[in-house]
Amino acid sequence: MDDFELSCKGLYRALTIREKYMRLAYQRFPRTASQYMREMEGESFKPEDQVQPVFTRLPENGGDPFDIKELPKNLGYVARMKDGVIYVYNDAAAADKHQPKDLPCADYETFIDDMNFLIALIAQGPTKTYTHRRLKFLMSKFNVHEMLNEMEEMRELKLNPHRDFYNCRKVDTHIHAAACMNQKHLLRFIKRSYRVDAERVVYKLNGREVTMKELFQSLNLHPYDLTVDSLDVHAGRQTFQRFDKFNAKYNPVGASELRDLYMKTENHINGEYFATIIKEVASDLEDAKYQFAEPRLSIYGCKPDEWSKLAGWFVRHRVFSPHLKWMIQVPRIYDIFRARDFVPHFGKMLENIFLPVFQATIGPQSNPDLSIFLKHVTGFDSVDDESKHSGHMFCTKSPKPEEWDIAKNPSYTYYIYYMYANITVLNQLRKQRGMNTFMFRPHCGEAGAITHLLASFMTADNISHGLNLKKSPVLQYLYFLTQIPIAMSPLSNNSLFLEYAKNPLLEFHKKGLVVSLSTDDPMQFHYTKEPLMEEYAIAAQVFKLSTCDMCEISRSSVLQSSLSHEEKVLYLGEDYLKEGPEGNDIRKTNVAQIRMAYRYETLCYELNRIKEGLKAE
Amino acid sequence: MDDFELSCKGLYRALTIREKYMRLAYQRFPRTASQYMREMEGESFKPEDQVQPVFTRLPENGGDPFDIKELPKNLGYVARMKDGVIYVYNDAAAADKHQPKDLPCADYETFIDDMNFLIALIAQGPTKTYTHRRLKFLMSKFNVHEMLNEMEEMRELKLNPHRDFYNCRKVDTHIHAAACMNQKHLLRFIKRSYRVDAERVVYKLNGREVTMKELFQSLNLHPYDLTVDSLDVHAGRQTFQRFDKFNAKYNPVGASELRDLYMKTENHINGEYFATIIKEVASDLEDAKYQFAEPRLSIYGCKPDEWSKLAGWFVRHRVFSPHLKWMIQVPRIYDIFRARDFVPHFGKMLENIFLPVFQATIGPQSNPDLSIFLKHVTGFDSVDDESKHSGHMFCTKSPKPEEWDIAKNPSYTYYIYYMYANITVLNQLRKQRGMNTFMFRPHCGEAGAITHLLASFMTADNISHGLNLKKSPVLQYLYFLTQIPIAMSPLSNNSLFLEYAKNPLLEFHKKGLVVSLSTDDPMQFHYTKEPLMEEYAIAAQVFKLSTCDMCEISRSSVLQSSLSHEEKVLYLGEDYLKEGPEGNDIRKTNVAQIRMAYRYETLCYELNRIKEGLKAE
Repeated sequence: MDDFELSCKGLYRALTIREKYMRLAYQRFPRTASQYMREMEGESFKPEDQVQPVFTRLPENGGDPFDIKELPKNLGYVARMKDGVIYVYNDAAAADKHQPKDLPCADYETFIDDMNFLIALIAQGPTKTYTHRRLKFLMSKFNVHEMLNEMEEMRELKLNPHRDFYNCRKVDTHIHAAACMNQKHLLRFIKRSYRVDAERVVYKLNGREVTMKELFQSLNLHPYDLTVDSLDVHAGRQTFQRFDKFNAKYNPVGASELRDLYMKTENHINGEYFATIIKEVASDLEDAKYQFAEPRLSIYGCKPDEWSKLAGWFVRHRVFSPHLKWMIQVPRIYDIFRARDFVPHFGKMLENIFLPVFQATIGPQSNPDLSIFLKHVTGFDSVDDESKHSGHMFCTKSPKPEEWDIAKNPSYTYYIYYMYANITVLNQLRKQRGMNTFMFRPHCGEAGAITHLLASFMTADNISHGLNLKKSPVLQYLYFLTQIPIAMSPLSNNSLFLEYAKNPLLEFHKKGLVVSLSTDDPMQFHYTKEPLMEEYAIAAQVFKLSTCDMCEISRSSVLQSSLSHEEKVLYLGEDYLKEGPEGNDIRKTNVAQIRMAYRYETLCYELNRIKEGLKAE
Repeated sequence: MDDFELSCKGLYRALTIREKYMRLAYQRFPRTASQYMREMEGESFKPEDQVQPVFTRLPENGGDPFDIKELPKNLGYVARMKDGVIYVYNDAAAADKHQPKDLPCADYETFIDDMNFLIALIAQGPTKTYTHRRLKFLMSKFNVHEMLNEMEEMRELKLNPHRDFYNCRKVDTHIHAAACMNQKHLLRFIKRSYRVDAERVVYKLNGREVTMKELFQSLNLHPYDLTVDSLDVHAGRQTFQRFDKFNAKYNPVGASELRDLYMKTENHINGEYFATIIKEVASDLEDAKYQFAEPRLSIYGCKPDEWSKLAGWFVRHRVFSPHLKWMIQVPRIYDIFRARDFVPHFGKMLENIFLPVFQATIGPQSNPDLSIFLKHVTGFDSVDDESKHSGHMFCTKSPKPEEWDIAKNPSYTYYIYYMYANITVLNQLRKQRGMNTFMFRPHCGEAGAITHLLASFMTADNISHGLNLKKSPVLQYLYFLTQIPIAMSPLSNNSLFLEYAKNPLLEFHKKGLVVSLSTDDPMQFHYTKEPLMEEYAIAAQVFKLSTCDMCEISRSSVLQSSLSHEEKVLYLGEDYLKEGPEGNDIRKTNVAQIRMAYRYETLCYELNRIKEGLKAE
């Protein structure tokens, strides 16, 4: 077998691996790739095999997003964790005998086999050479396309009435709720809250209830004097390559008390200020009309009641906006909890994260707040500093989560696998019940080992960052072939990991990887009132993006996002699920059909090459 | 004489040259440099020798900026042009005998002598080496300062109450009125005007009066379908190194009719739309509170009545805002006018530009509109594509303006000299009459020969662009020593002449040249609703500017600007005219005193070296 055939065989198997895991979890795998794979297998493509995640549609006119009248009935099933994964049983007896219901999950051994295969593949000489050359080719091809067709694309857009970059929908696909306001907004809010609430009891200081005035006095501060400088939440040169310093920036004036008061859902005022700030951000997005955001709220897995509290906050303050789609982020900080003895082992953390969701899925009426909240949750994110090396390597010999009671943090891949496995079972159950499903959209490839990107290739519908795809041509090519959306945040990277001019966004975009632009943390990184527009404007200026480029990125952001099917139809056109030019409605997206055709033909050409390679064998 | 002494001697003479021409024209020359120069000369510094331009102060509360009651009386003098410069005579008889009043102007021969000296100096080996080394040293010194004192500067700013980058005053020091709105604003305005005024007669098409509806029909357009793409006023990759294409972008939808209708002061509706757009921009600046702009309006010198018409427009539509300071830009397009036989020679163009201003200065009551308008005009700009080479070299043998009747355009320097000479006489006269004076603030060093920067060194209070200082260490060092403010527009450069990452802004700033940030043409270059903030945000991100850097640049923009003395006192502090830390009021500027001290000591050190060099001799 020659090198070409070897590479194609390996790439084909990689595709089948991702296809399998996506399907299992109701995540997306592109139809074009599936079609070519069926052809390679000599089978016929069945459209019904394609799966899609399910998102809650917006309430009809006048409908109440917090309506609890129509909650599905309780089923009385039992959910219980075994080996780090939650299984659903008909009853306690079945649970004791471990006779779970048929909700297929990724088999542990197979998963590790698949992973090991991919680890070998991305290090395999011929495949590295092959993919490297293909990527180089893709780059040059786009450059040629641009030189030949730039003016034609522009002409198409000029003839497209009433739609331009400004009124194309764009989604901020990666943003943390706790930093979703910009620094000036937070400053103003603090000053305003003090003018209104100085005498209100807002905090418990060393066990004593104190007013806001007393709280600020204890910090030796008067809000009137506060500035964005003294607030000190903005990242700067000091944070470059210092994720720890960056995390400390979440504390206004360096005081965790103020973070508690203003940026937490759980505090003495039940997270009222935080809810108000978020609703102000939402209101700005609604005014801007064409912008949406997908803020992340945290579940830590430290205590079992976190979900109930978070859902209570969400429902009490009615933190809902059609312009916000909610995500849950889980920080990978088992080691911190274990060190303080908050959890006995990693399994307990997983249980705290997932069991409440299973229970609310089985018995929605037993926890109406959580059930309502889950309707508006669209996915899970896994977050933390990827550059911290764990020293652990996920393999068949790794301890099971319930046995993982050491102080050391498990590896990224270990976290990812167990989150994915639980989400898979959960989605199967929710899909059966006609509920919305969850996408897995981890932070991945911002720093650290390239195995992170490998784990996400197997498990994630889409990812945030992806910078390290630079380092592995095989993975980069696979992300291209499977069109995995990547939410990139070059301004965030510029403050933390990679200078703006070196950001691979332009390179990825040219090669045909699916990228969107996102802000990550407007509080830390942005200066203007419209952080997402700032992000687009800077990318447009520094990378000299054309209107077509910018509208293509906007379109990708909507596709990547958790906007419901109905909203996507509205914003992208009826056929948005189709791939290639027929899936594009230029009147809504302002992306030239010439561009769409180029992308589609280019992708088909690459897939076809693999097919040829397999045939030769 | 060794190289060091030679260089110092040359630099000293260069300083005296600029000092002389600045003083003559009531433009600024820094006190620190003057003090050192007096020491070098063994004389004592006389503060009364320092001159300052005079700007009209804002009307007191409730005062009317268009009030014509207090216009000074007519003097009855006669103004007449001779050899390209306008002289003022007591009466026609004195004029005929050329017995002008004593309003000293730059002597033509001396000016050319001085210029030739400078041309030799910037090419002189030892001085090039010396200044190159000093600039390198300044760069490294700032880097060391930054590493040592960055945190200290930040601490100072954190302790500075109630003032941060957001509420520091900043002035957009270089912006063209015809492009001062962003593309989306213009688009909205066009659509809105159509909704209201479709049936209004707004234009004369081939001699026939047409309604707006008919006008758009003749263009095969309906404003409802218009988008920023079809509007096509934004610069893109196509405009790089193509100033001609860039100029064409001023025409919405490529139609000069729409430029006439929306962006001209003189048209069938008397420039009503243009006035409205500018007032909307002003209102945005007033809302933003801390932002000001200095828009340029055009005087072409093609006809003698241009000033009256422009002033009429200004007064009729009451285009006044405390946040706008007006400038007059004169395009260097004699060749075009001459080719069409609009003017017989270059002298006529100069006469059209300056004579009406002299006449209104002599007899304010004879042209009240123009007199009022001139109160609000703060300076002159010279504009056009600098990369066009004229092929003419300004020297004693150059034809006088009245003899310049050939089709060829005079050189940049020739234009600059005659503008400067006329402004000088004008300022002397106006100063005598207690009127406001005008600064000369040409576009300079955006492209073309470095002699442009030399001409401005002799004549301009401050300049726009200055990119080409990169190419001449001697001039760069002289701009540093004399602290000539430079309004830089890296986003404009990025679309036209120089990629963002290569912009020398950061380098100049570090070395201690005085730079401010400006937008040039928001319509062509910017994406967001706050173009000046976009400019600052991008510079901050790409160049990783600290808060102190940004506030220093903001402060420089106010100093450079034509805000009145009273406004500068308000925004910079009472002692703003003093140099060094004592001139800085951190409570108003948010610039750390450590930074001010560093800048001042560094400048003094360099001036002192020259003093030492002269002493040695």
